[in-house]
Amino acid sequence: MSNSNEADLPPNLACLKPIDTLLRCPICFDFLNISMMSQCSHNFCSLCIRKFLSYKLLCPVCNTPMTEQDLRNNRILDEVVQSFLSARQLLSRANFESPPISPKT
Amino acid sequence: MSNSNEADLPPNLACLKPIDTLLRCPICFDFLNISMMSQCSHNFCSLCIRKFLSYKLLCPVCNTPMTEQDLRNNRILDEVVQSFLSARQLLSRANFESPPISPKT
Ligand SMILES: [Zn+2]
Ligand SMILES: [Zn+2]
Ligand SMILES: [Zn+2]
Ligand SMILES: [Zn+2]
Repeated sequence: MSNSNEADLPPNLACLKPIDTLLRCPICFDFLNISMMSQCSHNFCSLCIRKFLSYKLLCPVCNTPMTEQDLRNNRILDEVVQSFLSARQLLSRANFESPPISPKT
Repeated sequence: MSNSNEADLPPNLACLKPIDTLLRCPICFDFLNISMMSQCSHNFCSLCIRKFLSYKLLCPVCNTPMTEQDLRNNRILDEVVQSFLSARQLLSRANFESPPISPKT
């Protein structure tokens, strides 16, 4: 995914950091891309977890034995990621545009 | 859950509405409480879906046949709900406190 995903949150949006962290893949650390959930309730990008399982048949987070057949699409997470990215962008703009803050020197 | 969950978003936080909508249970319309995901990737409060399934063994969203055994905890959603509620509260406060807006009459 694009580098813009890795942009730091402005200080006044620091409260969004916990959601940002939750929505990232524990393998690639980017936002979840086609989220797949294991039976142990851990979530990964579809490509990331399939690559990992071709190497060993364990959950990369908790080491529970698992196979590709145990994966289930977690579609709502993909929608939350998209809505979060839109909201974050709109809030950043709003915060930068409205209160005139003295520029950093 | 509490009525405060049903509070309308202030106009400057309207961009959070899509996330708010995604995080609600399609049975009770409150925020997901102990999220359970079906095989068809639909999410419900644990209590709401168990009550529903005692009545008929179908997904309430897409009518796919299902049983309680097909449900899987979607723990990340519970965490997203909590983080979202905290962020929303902090952003509402920030927005209400900083710019002095003329009071509605
Ligand atoms: Zn990934
Ligand atoms: Zn796991
Ligand atoms: Zn419910
Ligand atoms: Zn369904």
